[in-house]
Amino acid sequence: MAKGITKRDQDYAQWYIDVVLRSDMADYSPVKGCMVIKPNGYGVWENIQRHLDRMFKETGHVNAYFPMLIPESLLKKEAEHVEGFAPECAVVTHAGGKLLDEPLVIRPTSETIIWSTYKNWIKSYRDLPLLINQWANVCRWEMRTRLFLRTTEFLWQEGHTAHATFDEAEEEALKMVHVYKRFAEECLAMPCLVGRKTDQEKFAGALHTYCIEALMQDGKALQSGTSHHLGQNFGKAFDVTFQDANKEVQYVYGTSWGVSTRLIGAVIMSHSDDNGLVLPPKVAPLPVVFVPIWRSDEEMDLVLGRAREITRDWDPLFFKIDDRDHYKPGYKFADWEVRGVPIRIEIGPRDCAANQVVVVRRDTGDKTPMPMDGLRERLETLLDDIQANLFERARKRTEENTFVCDSYEDYKAKVADGGLFKVHWCGGDACETRLQEDTRSSIRCIPFDAPDEDGACLVCGKPSSRRVIAAQAY
Amino acid sequence: MAKGITKRDQDYAQWYIDVVLRSDMADYSPVKGCMVIKPNGYGVWENIQRHLDRMFKETGHVNAYFPMLIPESLLKKEAEHVEGFAPECAVVTHAGGKLLDEPLVIRPTSETIIWSTYKNWIKSYRDLPLLINQWANVCRWEMRTRLFLRTTEFLWQEGHTAHATFDEAEEEALKMVHVYKRFAEECLAMPCLVGRKTDQEKFAGALHTYCIEALMQDGKALQSGTSHHLGQNFGKAFDVTFQDANKEVQYVYGTSWGVSTRLIGAVIMSHSDDNGLVLPPKVAPLPVVFVPIWRSDEEMDLVLGRAREITRDWDPLFFKIDDRDHYKPGYKFADWEVRGVPIRIEIGPRDCAANQVVVVRRDTGDKTPMPMDGLRERLETLLDDIQANLFERARKRTEENTFVCDSYEDYKAKVADGGLFKVHWCGGDACETRLQEDTRSSIRCIPFDAPDEDGACLVCGKPSSRRVIAAQAY
Repeated sequence: MAKGITKRDQDYAQWYIDVVLRSDMADYSPVKGCMVIKPNGYGVWENIQRHLDRMFKETGHVNAYFPMLIPESLLKKEAEHVEGFAPECAVVTHAGGKLLDEPLVIRPTSETIIWSTYKNWIKSYRDLPLLINQWANVCRWEMRTRLFLRTTEFLWQEGHTAHATFDEAEEEALKMVHVYKRFAEECLAMPCLVGRKTDQEKFAGALHTYCIEALMQDGKALQSGTSHHLGQNFGKAFDVTFQDANKEVQYVYGTSWGVSTRLIGAVIMSHSDDNGLVLPPKVAPLPVVFVPIWRSDEEMDLVLGRAREITRDWDPLFFKIDDRDHYKPGYKFADWEVRGVPIRIEIGPRDCAANQVVVVRRDTGDKTPMPMDGLRERLETLLDDIQANLFERARKRTEENTFVCDSYEDYKAKVADGGLFKVHWCGGDACETRLQEDTRSSIRCIPFDAPDEDGACLVCGKPSSRRVIAAQAY
Repeated sequence: MAKGITKRDQDYAQWYIDVVLRSDMADYSPVKGCMVIKPNGYGVWENIQRHLDRMFKETGHVNAYFPMLIPESLLKKEAEHVEGFAPECAVVTHAGGKLLDEPLVIRPTSETIIWSTYKNWIKSYRDLPLLINQWANVCRWEMRTRLFLRTTEFLWQEGHTAHATFDEAEEEALKMVHVYKRFAEECLAMPCLVGRKTDQEKFAGALHTYCIEALMQDGKALQSGTSHHLGQNFGKAFDVTFQDANKEVQYVYGTSWGVSTRLIGAVIMSHSDDNGLVLPPKVAPLPVVFVPIWRSDEEMDLVLGRAREITRDWDPLFFKIDDRDHYKPGYKFADWEVRGVPIRIEIGPRDCAANQVVVVRRDTGDKTPMPMDGLRERLETLLDDIQANLFERARKRTEENTFVCDSYEDYKAKVADGGLFKVHWCGGDACETRLQEDTRSSIRCIPFDAPDEDGACLVCGKPSSRRVIAAQAY
């Protein structure tokens, strides 16, 4: 066990906090509920942004930036929306030394400020679709916070699109939840369920909400991204209309979709172990670290020299040579291990003599000698292997912890131990609420890929035509 | 003159607003003093971020993120700093439906929250230097705002570094102002003065401030980036100490440095013309646009087909084919011109027959036929030419509008017409203030490259040993 990290099977919640703090991903701050994202954590966010942003642009979206402060009157224009968000808002009442005429709310999400602006931008069907994304910080006053998973301020992206028809908005909402699934699986190595939220769990102001959900190592589900079909709700609330090709005036349809720094918590919980952080190479801030080994100044010159020679033409952001002379190699090994660097390279005088290095994988701990010649290409291949192995490991874990369940007694006995449960549900609010109250679990989603199947609701026994996924959740 | 754009020589301030709005760079918002950065403007910011971020990382910096909300008591810990910023702060007094115990200020800059955190991160000289940057939004309540140049909320980066010695902090502050100069000249094609601010103009809480200043087309200077040597001011205010190699406890030295979305305003004002926006290729969101020309459906199929064929393997973010069929080519030419796309490519049926296209430069308006074969490489060369030409044009303009001046009467007569004035100054606060009051101009900086030269203060006639730069400024 790494120093200062609780074992997972001893106390999973404490293990998570230990990993976050010891790996320098984040720190507590002097502001209640807010965290500091440290460089090792922010680097993961930068990689998430880079990959996702590319995917957004390839699907025709562009970025923009809207004000963080929203006049209270705007927030109140959509009835369900304000009901959902007003209790969580931080409110600016004073500025520039004066009491403001109207309080300003720090955005908990930006539908209201954005749709009030879209009103000026959309006149004709030629202005549609409008496909805009924003990278921003938001504030939601939370009572119980957890590093990355639930913080008062967090970073996210929020897409806000406007369309001429219901079908186009529906297509967009579906497209983006699938972009999230592909991103989570390919970049975060995190297998995801994809489906629809129940009406109780949908976004305040949406017709319906799609989501991706992933299973963490402790058997709890984590909602990792959502995509909302807003229908004409915001079009009507903000009077956003357009003239269609037949010169008729119509209200605009909308979608919104987002993922946040919560994804960093999801990555940590999906892959890390009792020795600390494990990161998928595609989002690791530092893919490769060299730890040179020496016992004399002469040896130091030799091994540092060789390490610098090997890496002379490499991108400096791809690797680091740990040349700190006040730490021993063993300390450095543990340090980079807890920080989740996917590949550690050991290079000592004997390795130099043999023109090789020793390559250590963070995911399995396997050590392999590799020739110095052609090392860069071998490392790329190994990084791909690590990425694939992490996904496969998580996929297998998810599969092994997904259960078909048809007895409410069984469910109540088992759900607290974790896992995803495929259960029949009649679709009624009452059964959904009762399940929550009885078990502290919930219906996570109605998966797109659930086949038609006749069954009886887990709670009330009424007919059901397909299974949903229920689980404990973060 | 492009439709809806005032000429520069008629009303420069109105020209600027017209260009910003007509080029879809930004829009007004329902929130006083805040703007919406539209996709064409945000795309420039993304390129600024990409280039600068690379330069920061190559000089050893890493990114992190600190809370946006700062407890009022923290802001008050450094006396000069709070005096400088408190009057501009937006204050959160309520959150989660309750009155807060202590008001929280939206960061006007992050020295206080960051140094209160550095206290926990720095114990030993081995923890130094600490080289951190943050990309973030900040709020400063401004009475008079202008799109990009001065807005209540703006986006920026703020570097915050910690060092063991005065000399290392000084080296860092100088290094970063030179990074800014290089960035402004190489990427924004904007020649810059680099030097030190007078004590009156320095950052609240710094020992001294370095800056880059650029001359806009109307003859006013624009402060475009600042780098502050904070000495031990924040180390002492937040009790941040370290044990040096001799086991003695010392206060930490600091720097901070930043550029903001104001740079977008600087780029617009440096290069644009009476037809709209002109952007340096290195920061243009869209480098190349194809405008196909057709008069029949058959011709449309032909030219669109060829345009798509030519660009089949190109990066989709490098170009766009304007295939809108409800606008005529002339409308599209003007549209892309006002939006500042560096290269427009016209392709009609006769061009297709000749295996060529017509390439139009936004900076000069020059039209050149180019063979379709090898077009991508020719465009890269042309983009480099445009970048170089914009810099050279701005350099020449700056040179032609830089004047040596030794008579206060002359200065008073000329400064309102614009330009940079090399003048002698005794170094006294009184003369600096009088110059400001008499002329509505100010000492912009004490340039690093000003040679030693005996002279007499422009205002009081007392001895001076080198010239400073005075000008009207934004």
